[in-house]
Amino acid sequence: MYSPLAFPVRLQKGTITVLDETRLPHEETYIEVRNLKDALEVLGQMKTRAFGQVLLFFYSCVLCGEIDTVAEAFQKTRPTFDFLQLADTVKEATQTTPSLKEAVKRIVEGFDEKRKVRAQQLAAILPPTANILTICNISGELIYIFAALREIGKKAAFFVSETRPYLQGTRLTLWELRQAAIPTRAIYDNQAAMVMKNGSVNCVITGSDRSTKRGDIINKIGTYAMARLAHYFHIPFYVLTQFPRAIDIGEITIEERPQQEVFIELDGEGPWPEALYPSFDITPAEFISGWIDISGEVRCA
Amino acid sequence: MYSPLAFPVRLQKGTITVLDETRLPHEETYIEVRNLKDALEVLGQMKTRAFGQVLLFFYSCVLCGEIDTVAEAFQKTRPTFDFLQLADTVKEATQTTPSLKEAVKRIVEGFDEKRKVRAQQLAAILPPTANILTICNISGELIYIFAALREIGKKAAFFVSETRPYLQGTRLTLWELRQAAIPTRAIYDNQAAMVMKNGSVNCVITGSDRSTKRGDIINKIGTYAMARLAHYFHIPFYVLTQFPRAIDIGEITIEERPQQEVFIELDGEGPWPEALYPSFDITPAEFISGWIDISGEVRCA
Repeated sequence: MYSPLAFPVRLQKGTITVLDETRLPHEETYIEVRNLKDALEVLGQMKTRAFGQVLLFFYSCVLCGEIDTVAEAFQKTRPTFDFLQLADTVKEATQTTPSLKEAVKRIVEGFDEKRKVRAQQLAAILPPTANILTICNISGELIYIFAALREIGKKAAFFVSETRPYLQGTRLTLWELRQAAIPTRAIYDNQAAMVMKNGSVNCVITGSDRSTKRGDIINKIGTYAMARLAHYFHIPFYVLTQFPRAIDIGEITIEERPQQEVFIELDGEGPWPEALYPSFDITPAEFISGWIDISGEVRCA
Repeated sequence: MYSPLAFPVRLQKGTITVLDETRLPHEETYIEVRNLKDALEVLGQMKTRAFGQVLLFFYSCVLCGEIDTVAEAFQKTRPTFDFLQLADTVKEATQTTPSLKEAVKRIVEGFDEKRKVRAQQLAAILPPTANILTICNISGELIYIFAALREIGKKAAFFVSETRPYLQGTRLTLWELRQAAIPTRAIYDNQAAMVMKNGSVNCVITGSDRSTKRGDIINKIGTYAMARLAHYFHIPFYVLTQFPRAIDIGEITIEERPQQEVFIELDGEGPWPEALYPSFDITPAEFISGWIDISGEVRCA
C-alpha cells in the first residue's frame, strides 16, 4: 500500500523534485527546485505542505550546504510551522555524521520506520471497526494506519472532510485513499456534526502542524471545531503530533492568509469584501483523547 | 435599504421572472418561467431557493390556474420544503378572494409587512452591539434586521459563513449586505467555532426551511453544527421560522443531493468516489434560544 504523498519531495542528482499538490487529484506533476529561491516560491504557494515541507526544508539545507539561512527564510515564509526546531534536528544529526547530505538521508529514512511504528500504536487503541473522520491530509499516514489495522484484524473506513479552502481533504486524502482502494466517503466540513450525531463515525484522527508540551495542537482551520464537536459527542479524537517542544500557545503566530483566498471558488475578479482567513486554529489539550508522537510515544488523556 | 433577494421572483404580464441566484454575485440575470415544466426545472437546479421558492410556487399556481398539481410536483422535486402547507395557505386565501391571482397578491404583500415586523421584534432582543454570525441566505431579511437595529440605536456587523457547497453565504448574503454597505466579513464554515471562541460574534441568526411544533428546525447543512457550537459557547442562537406546523422530525425526508455535487470545486470529470451530501440538517429545539415566526410570534427558550 503506497501513497505518493508519503514522500512528496525527493532529492535526486542535486535537484529537489516536489509533487505539486495543488494539481491533484487531476495531475501528478512534479516541480524542480534548484535553489533556495525556488524552494521558497514552492513553499509560499503551498505547492507542498506538512511532511512535504519538512522534506523540502531538509533537502534545501543539503542544496544550500547550510542550515540557519534556510531555516530563517522558511520560518519567515510560513510562520506556523516550526522550521527552527527542524533546524535543530538537522544540526544534531550532523554531529555524528560526516556530511549534511548523509545526516538528512538518515533522518528521512528513520522517519518512515517511525511512521510505521506509530501507525501500529494508534491501530492498537482504535475500535475493532474504526469509522474514522479526518480533516486535511496527513501525508500518507492514514494508509499506514489502515494497513496496521488490517494486520491485527480490525476493519476501517474513512470519512474525509473537504477542508476548505484548499480542499486538501477531497483533493489529497480522498485521492490517496482511493488509490489504495480503502473504503472512503467525502463530506463537507459542515457535515462533521451530523456524522458524529448519527453514529457514522466513532473516532477522529488528525495531524498537527505544531504542538505544545501540554498537548495543545495547531492544525488546519476546522480542526478545533471538529475536536470540540467530538468532545461533545464523546468520540475519541487522536492526533499524530510532530516535533513537540516546550512552547506556550501565546508564543505561536497563527498565519493569516490573504483575504482574497476566501473567495477562490467565486472565480471572478475582486475587489472582494473583508474576510477572515486564519489558515490554522488551536485545539486545546482538553479536547484531545490521545497524542501519538513521531518519536513513538503514545499519550492518552 | 434594499436587497434584490427580498423579492427574487416576480409575476409580470403572465410571465414569472426568477433571479438566477446561481449567477450571483457576478451577474444579476433573470430567467423567464412560462409554465410548470419551466418552474420545476428552475426549482430542481436550485436557481432560486428559500423565499424565492415560495414565490415561485405561488406564481406557478396563478400561471396554472390550479393549486394541487403544482404543490405535488413541487413537493416531489424538493422534498424538504413544505409546499403542501403553502398550498393550504393559498387555498385558505382564495376563500375570501374572488381570484387565485388576487389571493396570491394579498399573501405576498402581507408577507413583506410581516418581515418588517419580525425584524423589529428580533432587533429588540439582540445585544446593543450585535456581532451576528449567519449561514446560508435569508432572502434579504438580514437587511431588514440591520435597519430595525439602527432604528433603536443598536449597532450591528455580520460574519457570513460561506455555506458549502453552493456558497449561498459568500455569493448571496455577502453580496446583499455589501450592496447595503453593512459591515460584513466572510468566513469559512469551519471557522465558526473560532469566531465564537475569540468573542468576535455574540449571536447567531439563521433561517429555517421547516420547523416542527416543538421547535426543531430543518435548515441548510451546517446549521446543526453551528447551533451545537453556539450552545457550547453560550451564544444565543435565533431562528427565523416559516410556517410551523405539527409535524415530528421522523416524518421529514431529508433531501439527498447527487453525490457528485460534493466535488463541484474540483472542476474535472468523474467518476468520483462515494460521498455523503444531505442538503439539510436538523437542529433540535434544545439548541435554539429563540424562534421568530413570520406570523409575528416570538418564542424564547
